[in-house]
Amino acid sequence: MTTDPLVIFTPSGKRGRFPVGTPVLTAARQLGVDLDSVCGGRGICSKCQITPAYGDFPKHGVQVAEDALSGWNAVEERYDSKRGLKTGRRLGCQATVQRDVVIDVPPESQVHRQVVRKAAAARTLQMDPATRLYYVEVDQPDMHEPTGDLERVARALRAQWGIEEISTEFSTLAGLQPILRKGDWRITVALHKSDNSAIPRLVAAWPGLHEAGIYGLAIDLGSTTIAAHLTDLDTGAVMASSGIMNPQIRFGEDLMSRVSYAMMNPGGATEMTRAVREALDTLTIEIAAEAGIDAGLILETVFVCNPVMHHLLLGIDPVELGQAPFALATSDAVTLSARELGLTALPGAAQIYVLPCIAGHVGADAAAVALSEQPGKSEDLVLVVDVGTNAEILLGDTTRVLACSSPTGPAFEGAQISSGQRAAPGAIEAIRIDPVTKEPRFRVIGCDLWSDQDGFWQEVAQTGITGICGSGIIEAVAELRIAGLMDPSGLIGSAAQTGTDRCEADGRTHAYLIHDGSAEGGPRITVTQGDIRAIQLAKSALYAGARLLMDERGVDRVDRVVLAGAFGAHISALHAMVLGMIPDVALDKVSSAGNAAGTGARIALCSLAARREIERMVHRITKVETAIEPRFQEHFVAANAIPHATDPFPELASQVSLPVVSFNTGSGGGEGGRRRRRRG
Amino acid sequence: MTTDPLVIFTPSGKRGRFPVGTPVLTAARQLGVDLDSVCGGRGICSKCQITPAYGDFPKHGVQVAEDALSGWNAVEERYDSKRGLKTGRRLGCQATVQRDVVIDVPPESQVHRQVVRKAAAARTLQMDPATRLYYVEVDQPDMHEPTGDLERVARALRAQWGIEEISTEFSTLAGLQPILRKGDWRITVALHKSDNSAIPRLVAAWPGLHEAGIYGLAIDLGSTTIAAHLTDLDTGAVMASSGIMNPQIRFGEDLMSRVSYAMMNPGGATEMTRAVREALDTLTIEIAAEAGIDAGLILETVFVCNPVMHHLLLGIDPVELGQAPFALATSDAVTLSARELGLTALPGAAQIYVLPCIAGHVGADAAAVALSEQPGKSEDLVLVVDVGTNAEILLGDTTRVLACSSPTGPAFEGAQISSGQRAAPGAIEAIRIDPVTKEPRFRVIGCDLWSDQDGFWQEVAQTGITGICGSGIIEAVAELRIAGLMDPSGLIGSAAQTGTDRCEADGRTHAYLIHDGSAEGGPRITVTQGDIRAIQLAKSALYAGARLLMDERGVDRVDRVVLAGAFGAHISALHAMVLGMIPDVALDKVSSAGNAAGTGARIALCSLAARREIERMVHRITKVETAIEPRFQEHFVAANAIPHATDPFPELASQVSLPVVSFNTGSGGGEGGRRRRRRG
Repeated sequence: MTTDPLVIFTPSGKRGRFPVGTPVLTAARQLGVDLDSVCGGRGICSKCQITPAYGDFPKHGVQVAEDALSGWNAVEERYDSKRGLKTGRRLGCQATVQRDVVIDVPPESQVHRQVVRKAAAARTLQMDPATRLYYVEVDQPDMHEPTGDLERVARALRAQWGIEEISTEFSTLAGLQPILRKGDWRITVALHKSDNSAIPRLVAAWPGLHEAGIYGLAIDLGSTTIAAHLTDLDTGAVMASSGIMNPQIRFGEDLMSRVSYAMMNPGGATEMTRAVREALDTLTIEIAAEAGIDAGLILETVFVCNPVMHHLLLGIDPVELGQAPFALATSDAVTLSARELGLTALPGAAQIYVLPCIAGHVGADAAAVALSEQPGKSEDLVLVVDVGTNAEILLGDTTRVLACSSPTGPAFEGAQISSGQRAAPGAIEAIRIDPVTKEPRFRVIGCDLWSDQDGFWQEVAQTGITGICGSGIIEAVAELRIAGLMDPSGLIGSAAQTGTDRCEADGRTHAYLIHDGSAEGGPRITVTQGDIRAIQLAKSALYAGARLLMDERGVDRVDRVVLAGAFGAHISALHAMVLGMIPDVALDKVSSAGNAAGTGARIALCSLAARREIERMVHRITKVETAIEPRFQEHFVAANAIPHATDPFPELASQVSLPVVSFNTGSGGGEGGRRRRRRG
Repeated sequence: MTTDPLVIFTPSGKRGRFPVGTPVLTAARQLGVDLDSVCGGRGICSKCQITPAYGDFPKHGVQVAEDALSGWNAVEERYDSKRGLKTGRRLGCQATVQRDVVIDVPPESQVHRQVVRKAAAARTLQMDPATRLYYVEVDQPDMHEPTGDLERVARALRAQWGIEEISTEFSTLAGLQPILRKGDWRITVALHKSDNSAIPRLVAAWPGLHEAGIYGLAIDLGSTTIAAHLTDLDTGAVMASSGIMNPQIRFGEDLMSRVSYAMMNPGGATEMTRAVREALDTLTIEIAAEAGIDAGLILETVFVCNPVMHHLLLGIDPVELGQAPFALATSDAVTLSARELGLTALPGAAQIYVLPCIAGHVGADAAAVALSEQPGKSEDLVLVVDVGTNAEILLGDTTRVLACSSPTGPAFEGAQISSGQRAAPGAIEAIRIDPVTKEPRFRVIGCDLWSDQDGFWQEVAQTGITGICGSGIIEAVAELRIAGLMDPSGLIGSAAQTGTDRCEADGRTHAYLIHDGSAEGGPRITVTQGDIRAIQLAKSALYAGARLLMDERGVDRVDRVVLAGAFGAHISALHAMVLGMIPDVALDKVSSAGNAAGTGARIALCSLAARREIERMVHRITKVETAIEPRFQEHFVAANAIPHATDPFPELASQVSLPVVSFNTGSGGGEGGRRRRRRG
């Protein structure tokens, strides 16, 4: 009696004996090895490529001979001549086992492959797609055994893929008959599972083998901007990234003003819902065009957003979010179809997943940051700050995670700033002030040179110097403090007090002139006392939120800080700390996570397991409500000073010494901390 | 040790012992007794009314004392004073068990109550509603334990009703917050289950206890007319019945002409889909108004229809149904929402159920007839004929059921008849011809008198005599045969041949004058040779279909015949048999089932169990395709003669002797059986 050949798969290490002549794909399936296939082993989809390894493998206890697999067959020859098969590769459905063999499944042949994320910290995400393709050969109709075409598709899926039961998106049913006939009873279907245990849902079908791929959108729906990543649902690759302004801005800059608009104007919420859905349609069409794909192939979309955007997206009046107890209509993840959501640029059957919210002011965007940054898996205590119009703040380690949201307002994004503008060519994005001469130098978006370097003025001639963006204003305020032109209370000194004419009178206060473009017809760009106050309000809110979480956790310091948000990437850690935006920590312990919310959306888009993970995670996060916590006001007032009225900043002090100055002559300033503030 | 009191429920006979003080509702629930409750035992919905029985019950082995239940409490006093409690009734949630007791649950307190159907054969249907109401008291939001309002509704359903999990119709979610607040955190929700084992779906919510009921539509969507029954989903009572013409008639009278329209005109199918959906919206608004209920309370709709109507309703191009192999897009039952179906008069979340089809030409209407008439449960061999523009024919007994569809065309409905009209006041619906004088007498819709009775002409003066409807033309043709004015081949004799001037020349053929209204400006109503031919085509198709099933079953005769269809009720069995519409059978074995398809729709509307039953049943029915069966043509040609060229009609002969006449002079007629026919 001979023994069947041994087949060992790497990297899984799964092994088993199979009769001579068993196709490699069959062996893989029987062992539960993750080897992709769309055509079900018919040699046409090429998803099941494997690499046999030859030679001696003492680790596995086998020697693999050159004839361990069958020779190339006609199917492989044809595929190679038409599409080209990489050297050493075989089609797993064609190559059959002849002798003991070690078979490597390359990442691109795995359904649950790992995808390297582009974020600053290069982590990987594991594909666990909700929607997958299946090629089937369907029986033709028979008058003597009448069954519907759909029922025969279901029968084919049962016989050819072992899928016992399916449900069907109604709109897909309507198009099924011509597709079956065009494909001569061979079609590819897309099945969506809301969960690995759920009955798969037929959401799309194409004639023959569908080779144009299927795609998903990961959308970070912010108060100010909407950012989308178009992602290949098979490979996880980002095909295009695009953004668009949130048109709801015309109803109010910040969240509370939008809630107010809904409260004051009958139909106002509906109007805002319509506006954002139209913008999403535009964005979908644009991003599909940019990637050169048919928007009809976008079968999934994941949304992350704050609670007000969440409700307005879903067509829920956000009025309850404007008043205590800030009750969400729903906090769990929401699953629905594009048709239900009224998104017309997507196929009606496209599945939408909206991440769960954490609390009335801590939304699905915060959940996405938690999914991306995983504070609950950090050994040291990490503070994650997602800076936007509203700041999402998470504090945690493996013991416990806390979260809150803080109404920073739009100042960090360059709004409500006298010379503020959004980050676009011509905007000052970085600035340094010489502590001795008090003269500034700066860099503008679209030019890598500093303003005191040769060639700068030629390079910026076309865009001009148009304003100052979010990161620019933060640096400017911090630099004013470092250069001794602004005192800890936030007062800008006069020319006499500071010894520079750049500190010019501006009514009863002073402003610092960064650049005077008036000779060339451009703007005079200054930092005014009002700008300082706006930044103070924003940074105090951010710091107070972080402190509230630290109080709740019973700590005075954190081990490290992660700055997230599109804008986090552009903030210098030193300047953020001079300003007192974040608690004192060693500068090398401040890192940027890029757009963590967007990354969280991408992770959820590519993985059902990740969706289940964040759904569980949000229930374990302790929510802290800043709006009703008296200590928030105390922390807020104390954080008004730059960097802080009372908290020591020893790590900051070891890096930079801040001049001890005071410009208070009793005639202005100092009221900032007591202004009424609006959430947003 | 004392023994707990014994509680016996009738009619179920369920019994058990419960501690003194147990509410009757609690005892019923623990025993699984079918006792309704919407408010969950709070004494506000009054659904759980029961009748205690007092005295000696030797059958049950108990004596029930007057104090077996607790005395009336304040809740019952209040309810009785406000609404009135029937004598002897108690509220099951308030009355508590004190001593041994026998408790009757009246039908109206049972969820699964039986409802007597109005059809000719008084059968009952058992309520097993898919949508039910639940009153819940919901926790208010708590900032310190933030959860969404929806999640707290789910929690309340879990705690108060033991419903572990729900899903939510997205449109219901959007309206939930104001409803919760309006109801002061007490609401009634409607939960829909597609199956008794399915996760219930939240499809509607109202503040407080919802007392206005919930409703369903049972719709028989025919080629010519759309008929709807508005039904109370709690009691099964029909609140209103209404009908509307199918506006698709403008695209073609019969099914095949509509399929042709779709094939010849790009967008034609979509146009017909839009037309029928608009008509359904109109019908919904009208029927709700007629019943005086809010259309927003119609939470379910069941459709029965032939395959072409089925596809056009669902927005599926019916082109495949126009050619062999007549492949349905889907044959199984279809479940979807009103929003998906584009029905705007219903709430978007309203659930739609379309019965399964049996085959490409045997639709959900035939399935509904099978559900209503249950040929598979008949001990004797029954032929069920649903007469419409298309006839659905079922033949079966407990052994086996066969089904086919036969293209009778619209002649039976008065269309394609020279003086034909639909059944409306003024239409001749019955006619008798004196065999001696050859003079007709008739009755018209809207008047109970015959035309030879006193007062007839006064009574019909207002409507006039406008035409002849379906049952009228059938009787007219049969009476012409009985009176010897028409020969077995269908030829009308001349005045000379018949001896009456009412047989007048009409081109190369003859017509029989029923009524000349021209003196009063009304129409001359005649039966023309063309009318006879149209009826011959229709009746031959019907008979041939029945014979095909009898061949398949291997029988020459059936035990009984059920005439279904709105119109079946109006056909005299004798006249139908003289015409040879149905096989020869004793006249008392011919019964009418009224609108069996509509009844089947009502049964499915009220019962999940019935939906599962018909879904199983259609798979067991043998389908016979008339369009491709050569014997159908043979049977069709042989059935052209009146009553039949070859089949003996002994039962008919025992009732009436048909004159042996022949009017064939070689100059016309006789071509009827060989005309090309169109399905429809």
